[in-house]
Amino acid sequence: MPSKYAIGVDFGTESGRAVLVDVSNGKEIATSVYPYSHGVIDEKLPDSNIRLDFDWALQDPDDYIRTFQNTIPAVLKISGVNPQDVIGLGIDFTACTMLPAKSDGTPLCTIPEYRQNPHAWVKLWKHHAAQPEADKINQTARDMGEGWLNRYGGKISSEWFFSKVLQIANEDPALYKAADRMIEAADWVVWRLTGKETRNSCTAGYKAIWSKREGFPSKKFFKALNPLLENVVEEKMSQDIVPIGQKAGGLSEEAARWTGLLPGTAVAVANVDAHVAVPAATVTEPGRMVMIMGTSTCDMVLGTEEHIVPGMCGYVEDGIIPGFFGYEAGQSCVGDHFAWFVENCVPAAYQQEAREHDLDIHKFLEEKASKLKPGESGLLALDWWNGNRSVLVDVDLTGMILGMTLATKPEEIYRALIEATAYGKRIIIETFQKNGVPVNELVACGGLPEKNPMLMQIYADVIGVPLKISASKQTPALGSAMFGAVAAGKAAGGYDSIMEAAKKMAAIKDIVYRPIPENQKVYEKLYQEYVILHDYFGRGTNDVMKHLKSIKVSSHR
Amino acid sequence: MPSKYAIGVDFGTESGRAVLVDVSNGKEIATSVYPYSHGVIDEKLPDSNIRLDFDWALQDPDDYIRTFQNTIPAVLKISGVNPQDVIGLGIDFTACTMLPAKSDGTPLCTIPEYRQNPHAWVKLWKHHAAQPEADKINQTARDMGEGWLNRYGGKISSEWFFSKVLQIANEDPALYKAADRMIEAADWVVWRLTGKETRNSCTAGYKAIWSKREGFPSKKFFKALNPLLENVVEEKMSQDIVPIGQKAGGLSEEAARWTGLLPGTAVAVANVDAHVAVPAATVTEPGRMVMIMGTSTCDMVLGTEEHIVPGMCGYVEDGIIPGFFGYEAGQSCVGDHFAWFVENCVPAAYQQEAREHDLDIHKFLEEKASKLKPGESGLLALDWWNGNRSVLVDVDLTGMILGMTLATKPEEIYRALIEATAYGKRIIIETFQKNGVPVNELVACGGLPEKNPMLMQIYADVIGVPLKISASKQTPALGSAMFGAVAAGKAAGGYDSIMEAAKKMAAIKDIVYRPIPENQKVYEKLYQEYVILHDYFGRGTNDVMKHLKSIKVSSHR
Repeated sequence: MPSKYAIGVDFGTESGRAVLVDVSNGKEIATSVYPYSHGVIDEKLPDSNIRLDFDWALQDPDDYIRTFQNTIPAVLKISGVNPQDVIGLGIDFTACTMLPAKSDGTPLCTIPEYRQNPHAWVKLWKHHAAQPEADKINQTARDMGEGWLNRYGGKISSEWFFSKVLQIANEDPALYKAADRMIEAADWVVWRLTGKETRNSCTAGYKAIWSKREGFPSKKFFKALNPLLENVVEEKMSQDIVPIGQKAGGLSEEAARWTGLLPGTAVAVANVDAHVAVPAATVTEPGRMVMIMGTSTCDMVLGTEEHIVPGMCGYVEDGIIPGFFGYEAGQSCVGDHFAWFVENCVPAAYQQEAREHDLDIHKFLEEKASKLKPGESGLLALDWWNGNRSVLVDVDLTGMILGMTLATKPEEIYRALIEATAYGKRIIIETFQKNGVPVNELVACGGLPEKNPMLMQIYADVIGVPLKISASKQTPALGSAMFGAVAAGKAAGGYDSIMEAAKKMAAIKDIVYRPIPENQKVYEKLYQEYVILHDYFGRGTNDVMKHLKSIKVSSHR
Repeated sequence: MPSKYAIGVDFGTESGRAVLVDVSNGKEIATSVYPYSHGVIDEKLPDSNIRLDFDWALQDPDDYIRTFQNTIPAVLKISGVNPQDVIGLGIDFTACTMLPAKSDGTPLCTIPEYRQNPHAWVKLWKHHAAQPEADKINQTARDMGEGWLNRYGGKISSEWFFSKVLQIANEDPALYKAADRMIEAADWVVWRLTGKETRNSCTAGYKAIWSKREGFPSKKFFKALNPLLENVVEEKMSQDIVPIGQKAGGLSEEAARWTGLLPGTAVAVANVDAHVAVPAATVTEPGRMVMIMGTSTCDMVLGTEEHIVPGMCGYVEDGIIPGFFGYEAGQSCVGDHFAWFVENCVPAAYQQEAREHDLDIHKFLEEKASKLKPGESGLLALDWWNGNRSVLVDVDLTGMILGMTLATKPEEIYRALIEATAYGKRIIIETFQKNGVPVNELVACGGLPEKNPMLMQIYADVIGVPLKISASKQTPALGSAMFGAVAAGKAAGGYDSIMEAAKKMAAIKDIVYRPIPENQKVYEKLYQEYVILHDYFGRGTNDVMKHLKSIKVSSHR
C-alpha cells in the first residue's frame, strides 16, 4: 500500500505556507510559501488613496485564495505525490483575523460598492484600532457582572472578535448592516474549501467569548454595547460551533480545481496557528508550555483543572486538546520587535560588515550580542513596542529602554530587546504558576528558536527551566496536516484522534537549553528591576505611555 | 595706522582652532583647525597595549603644542597679516582638563618612565572615572560642614580638579608624588607660551573650589580626603590666582618660533571655552543666558547678587565678567548625543538616501524630523547618555527613551533626543529663576545652533523665551581673541576692559527664534511628563540606572 499524506496550510501575517506530510511518521516532504501580494495593509487601501489610521492593520482575502492556488499545486509537484494519496487537509490561521461577508461567503471588500471602505476588508489580528471598543466591552461586562470575564483574565483584548465587530458597528453602521456574516478568516477559508460554513471551537472559545457550557454572551449584553449588536450571533454568526479535531467537509469541485486535490478530500475544521502547534510540538499533557515564536508569541499550556489566571488571554475547555483546559497567554511583539530594530536602528557600517562576512544581519547581530555577558550592557527594556498582551492586556502601552551611555552599541540594544521578551515571558509563567497552572518545561517552535540559539539560552537563563525545540521548522503547518489526517480518520489511512496523530507525527529536537547558574544569578537581579518598571509603567503608577499616546493622537488631528 | 589684530586659540575636545580677528570690529579674518592626532584617548594608551577602563578619557599634551605650531602660522599665512600687527593672543580650553607635570612644566606622560602609566596623561573634562573620589569629597565636605559646598549647588562633580587629583593620589600614589605640579591644561598651555606659570581665576573658581574671598579649602579638609593631599595647594599648585582679563606674560622665544609671532606679544591669562564665549556673545549684563552648545552644553548667566542655586555647577565672583557673579550650569550630552545616535542608530537606507540628496546625515535627519509636529512621535527621552550635570550632578545616571511602537522611525527618535535636551535646559532655567537668578533671554553659540534651526525652535518652544544666536561661528575663539586684545591694552591698540572689547568686537545675528504658542501648549504637557520621569529616575525613587551600572561594573570583572 502506498504511503498516505496530509497537507497543512498555515496562514501567517505576511505569507501562507503549505506543507505536505507523510502521515505515518510526520516527515515533511514538500513545502511552498506564498507571500501575500498585499501583505499587511496599514497605510492605505490597495488601488486607492484611502489612508488608514496608524493603528489599523488589514488584509486582502484574495491573498488567502491565492495561497491555496499557488502552494498546494506546488507541494504536489515538488513531492510527486499522487493527489489520490492525499487523504486530508487542515488549515490554521492567525486569530482573531476576521471579515464581513455576504451570505454566500463573498467578502464585502471584493464587492465594488464597498471596496473603498476600510471596514469592508479583513481586520488582521494586529489591527489595534478597536481599543475603545474593547474598553467598552470590558467596562460593560464589569458593570453587568458578566461571569465569562474571568475566563479571559478579567479583560478582553482589542484584537478580539467582538471588539472588531463593535468597531464596525460603531463607525460604519451601514456596512455592519450590509454584512450577512461576521466570520473568522480561519473559518472563511474552510468555507471556501468545502462550500460549507462551519465555525471552529478554538477561535470561538479564545477570541469570541464562547464556551461549550455557556455559549456566547447574552443578547442583553450585546445590546448594551450597541443596539445594532443585540442579535449579532443569530444574524451574523452561528450557534453551531464545531469542536476542533472534526471534519468540516469534503473539498468542493471549485477548490479541487484550485489545488489539484481530489474533490471530497477530507478538510478539517479550522484552527489557530498557535493552538494547532501544541500537539505538533509533542505536547498533549499539562506542565509543558509551548511557545509559538514568530512576529508575536503565543504561549499554550494544558491543565486538568479550571483556574482563573489574571491577564492571560483565556482558557477554553477542549480548546487545544480534547479533555483538557487549554490556557493561552501571549506577547504581542517578539520577532516584530527584532525586525523593527534591524530596519530602523542598525547602522550602515554594521550592514556592510554583515555583507562582507556573508551573514544575515540578524545572525551578525546575534554573533556580536552573544559575546556579551548578562548585565554587561547596563541596558533594560520593556518589550511593549506593540503593547502588552499578557499579563497586562493593554495595547496602549509602548516600548521603553534605559541604561544607554555614549558607549552603547547596537548589539547591546539588540540583546536588551531579546532579554526584555524573556523577562516578559517569565512574568507570564510566574503568573500561571501562582494561580495553579504548573509550567515545568518550555517547548519552543516557530522561526526564531531555530535561528537564534542565543535567544534560547537567554530564555532558559532568565526563566530557569529547561527549554526544548519542536523538531519541525514549521510546527503549525505540521499540526494542521495532523488535523487533516484526523479529519480523514483511521479508515482512510489517518488517525482517529489528535493524541494518536501526535505520537506518530510529532517530535522534538535532541538539543536542550538548560539554565546556566552564573547567568541566572545576574538575570535574577535584572528581572527584579524589570518587574519594578513593568509595574510602574504598566499598572497605573505612571501612565505616561498613555498620556503620550493621547497627545500623539490629538497631534494627528 | 594699520589695523591691529588679536588671535584666539580655542582648545576643544577633538581639535584646536585659531582665529585671527580684527581688533577694531571683531571681524574674523582667518581660521585654522588642528584635529588632535590622538583625539580622545579612551580605549588604550598611544603606542602601547595598556587598556583603559570604560569611563576614562585622556589626551596627549603634545597635541596642544601641535595646535599652536599648525594653526597660528596658518592664520598668519591665510590672512597675510604682519606679525607685528598681532597685538595679543588669548586661549580658552575645555575644563576641567588637567595634567601632572614636573616643576619646569614637562608633562609626566612625555617622560619615558611614566609613559605607560594612564595617570600620567591629561585627564580630559569627560574623564568620568573619578566618581568615587567626587563622592568622597562631597561626603567629607558635608561631614565637616564645609561652607564652600553651597557655592557649587551642594555637590561637586567627578569632572572637577580635585576629584581627578584625588583619583591619582588614591590609585597611583607614586605618580602623585612624582608630580611637582597639578595644573589645568588651560594654564599649562599659557605656561608653554610665556615660560611663566600662572593660574587663572576662572578654572580655579569653577573647577578647583577656589574663591577670591576664601581661597582654597583647608589643609584639614584635604588631609581628610587622603593624607597625601594635605599640602596639595602648596606642593603642587599655587595660591597666586590671576584674575581673568589680565596679561599672563609675553610670548617666549620658543613659542615665537612655534607660531611665527613676535617674542613678547601679549598673552592673556587662560580662560574656559564656555566662559570666554559670554562676552563674545555680547552678554555683559544679567538676565541673558548664554548657552555654549557643542558635544556638551554650558550655560552661563550673570547676576548682581549671590544666590545658592541647587544643582548648578557653581558661581564665581568676577568669574566671567568683572563685577558680577558668574553662574554656570550645564548639560553633559548634547552634540555627543546626536553623534552617538547617527553612529549607532541610523539605518543604511537613511545613510544612502542622504547621500543621494547630497545631504549631511544630520541635515537629512533634521529635514525629516522638522516635518513632525510636537508630540506626534509619542516619544519621550531623558537626556542622560553621559550622566546629568545640572541639576542632578550625577554621572551615574543613564539614558532612557519610551513611547516606541513598531511604527517608530529614526527621525522621531532623533527629534525626541533633541527635545530631551530642551526639557533638561528648561529644568536648569526654572531652577535658576526659582532661586533668584533671572533668565529672560537665551543667546546660543557653538556649532549646533548654526546648523540646526529646528533645534533652536524646539528650545524656544519648550522653554518659552526668545532665543538669539551669537554672530560668530566660533564664539569661544573670538572671546579668546578679545581677551588677547585686552591683555595688550589700549595703548597697544587693544582695549582696557572686556566690556569695552565686547562693545566693539561682539555681535549677535538678526534672526530671533520666538516661542510658537501652539507648540508651547503641547510641549507644556510633554514637559510635565518629563519632570515626573526626571524626578523618578534622577532623585532616588527608582535607582535602577545605578543598579544596572553596578551590575555592569561587576560583569566586567
